[in-house]
Amino acid sequence: MAFSKRVDRLKSSLIREILAAAQRPEVMSFAGGLPAEAMLPKVDWAPMPAALGQYGMSEGEPALREAIAAEARALGVPCEASQVLIVSGSQQTLDLASKLFIDPGTEVLLEAPTYLAALQAFQFFGADCIAVPQESDGPQLEALRRALERSTPAFAYLIPTFQNPSAVRYSEAKREAVAALLDEFGVPLIEDEPYRELVFDEGSARPIVSRLRKASWIYTGTVSKTLLPGLRVGYLIASPDLFPYLLRLKQSADLHTNRIGQWQALQWLGSEQYRAHLAELRDFYRLRRDAMQAALLEHFADLADWEIPQGGLFFWLTLRQPLDTRTLLDAALQRNVAFMPGEPFFVDPDRHPGHLRLNFSHVGPDRLGEGLRRLAAVIREALPAEAA
Amino acid sequence: MAFSKRVDRLKSSLIREILAAAQRPEVMSFAGGLPAEAMLPKVDWAPMPAALGQYGMSEGEPALREAIAAEARALGVPCEASQVLIVSGSQQTLDLASKLFIDPGTEVLLEAPTYLAALQAFQFFGADCIAVPQESDGPQLEALRRALERSTPAFAYLIPTFQNPSAVRYSEAKREAVAALLDEFGVPLIEDEPYRELVFDEGSARPIVSRLRKASWIYTGTVSKTLLPGLRVGYLIASPDLFPYLLRLKQSADLHTNRIGQWQALQWLGSEQYRAHLAELRDFYRLRRDAMQAALLEHFADLADWEIPQGGLFFWLTLRQPLDTRTLLDAALQRNVAFMPGEPFFVDPDRHPGHLRLNFSHVGPDRLGEGLRRLAAVIREALPAEAA
Repeated sequence: MAFSKRVDRLKSSLIREILAAAQRPEVMSFAGGLPAEAMLPKVDWAPMPAALGQYGMSEGEPALREAIAAEARALGVPCEASQVLIVSGSQQTLDLASKLFIDPGTEVLLEAPTYLAALQAFQFFGADCIAVPQESDGPQLEALRRALERSTPAFAYLIPTFQNPSAVRYSEAKREAVAALLDEFGVPLIEDEPYRELVFDEGSARPIVSRLRKASWIYTGTVSKTLLPGLRVGYLIASPDLFPYLLRLKQSADLHTNRIGQWQALQWLGSEQYRAHLAELRDFYRLRRDAMQAALLEHFADLADWEIPQGGLFFWLTLRQPLDTRTLLDAALQRNVAFMPGEPFFVDPDRHPGHLRLNFSHVGPDRLGEGLRRLAAVIREALPAEAA
Repeated sequence: MAFSKRVDRLKSSLIREILAAAQRPEVMSFAGGLPAEAMLPKVDWAPMPAALGQYGMSEGEPALREAIAAEARALGVPCEASQVLIVSGSQQTLDLASKLFIDPGTEVLLEAPTYLAALQAFQFFGADCIAVPQESDGPQLEALRRALERSTPAFAYLIPTFQNPSAVRYSEAKREAVAALLDEFGVPLIEDEPYRELVFDEGSARPIVSRLRKASWIYTGTVSKTLLPGLRVGYLIASPDLFPYLLRLKQSADLHTNRIGQWQALQWLGSEQYRAHLAELRDFYRLRRDAMQAALLEHFADLADWEIPQGGLFFWLTLRQPLDTRTLLDAALQRNVAFMPGEPFFVDPDRHPGHLRLNFSHVGPDRLGEGLRRLAAVIREALPAEAA
């Protein structure tokens, strides 16, 4: 039996394995990116029309597309409902974009670090990934220009607002500069924004796609982080030159997104109820972030450096004494603590040791200190004697 | 901007365009394969647990996997729940299988005719499709053996029970013979069974995968034809050597299938309520089939030959005077009649003129005769003068 060549590039997902280990109820997990169970909103299914049981359109439900386009326009993204494609969660946008752009050897531009599941999807289709170092306010611009001069990427994949894993929010200046560079080199942009609404500290963050003048673009979002991930409803908005291809790819992938979840998402988007829910969500997560910050200061002040995330779901720690954090996983899990090693978020993992991604939404404040205390102990034990 | 090479193979879907035209309420559509609206069951969402809003497992909901495995075992398919993967509708199985098996130039074995959307998916990934002629009781066995001797297909894709489009149900003897040949040549089987439960006339149809002794296999089904297509819940069952790959491909495609639809499907599968619903559905569709048969005899007796479908949703007509039925579409639509030309269901469409696929579930008996009368008139006008 012969498999396709791309199957050789199908990595066993580290996320999958860690999350499986973290399922044990005694484990304190800083590994995942799950919304807090307590903050899943109560939803009402009773008024849903029975006709939604029938096959639907590949594009998605017209009213939902309108609502999403209206929200995007309010953010400054110039678009019509006809540019909105409802997808089966944001991950599907990565699959569709990979199919659209990537042959074996196709160059793709990413941030370093970048979202692990995006990196894996692009590499699975054979992409040659080129990474631009991330700074606290966005990518290093000189490195970005150099990368654009030396390569011809099919697209740039960026997560400018509370990036997973680094929590970086691009500054206004970097948003402008990145847009100008992509226009200059004619490189399409995929802008991934799952965390936009999970903002704890004010700050401007107009999407980069709204600043483009020439380059093609895909803007992608989801209701998974703010409503219910189990619905599997995400969306993309694409420049008109890309949309027809993405629509046909969607049709070929799974015909259309489930209409039940689309209907529920429509009940919330743009409503007063949703605004109230988002406000509660931000308050809840802000408290958890602050508790995590306090516990980190107590247990990690001498071990690592980090910035306080202004949104999203993660702290990104940089160890002062770099070591391969993947080697810490077993010892941590033995003490019932799960975390996400930083190496797999890089194109060249072995050259980027010493980062940890810690989720702050899942573990309650009562167990937080104990979890971080144990994790710090695991790190101390792994450090060379003189360093510890 | 550069797209992937596979985008050159992305066909504008004829189905999509015809179905769009058929949306006009005045159109009598024999084109689609939609369940009759009147037969969509009433479903209750109230008892659904709120916890299903959270992210779920890529494999699918454990209880649903158990229920599907139990149903498959009752059909003779030797499997455990651990071999069941819940997918976002059966179309996704075609996407995952394509990713697993197909590189540009990979040979794939199909029936002629075969399911249009499968053919398009395989060709999109670059498959070199080899077709074996279909007879009224299954594939021509000599042609199948010859194809297996002359090529090395990555898999065979077969729809042995009420095939779309031909409505053929393989005989017992052909099921046995096909299984033996696939075992002999070591070719994996993808057995697609969306229509198994839509049976109007009794007859044995134990799945071919249950007869395999050595070859790897994927068995695929859906609740779309018998419950609610809008849920987007299908499933595959795979031999243990294939399952881990398909699971990782599913995770990379869209993380997991929506849990709302999975929960609803579980309420029905194996229940007394579902058995009663299926019985009603069969009675309803049997009446529609019989009405279509009567109307066809009235309007098409001199124009075409066909067999009475024992299940599924389609009649497959063969014109006595072959002509390219794609050229009839415009004239038919002008008279507010939609149908599906037969040519695109073949690997080499231009060499197989003269078939029409007619759905019998959608148009009610009151308009059926008028629709077929108009369609027959369109055909008569297109025939050479002496033949008409």
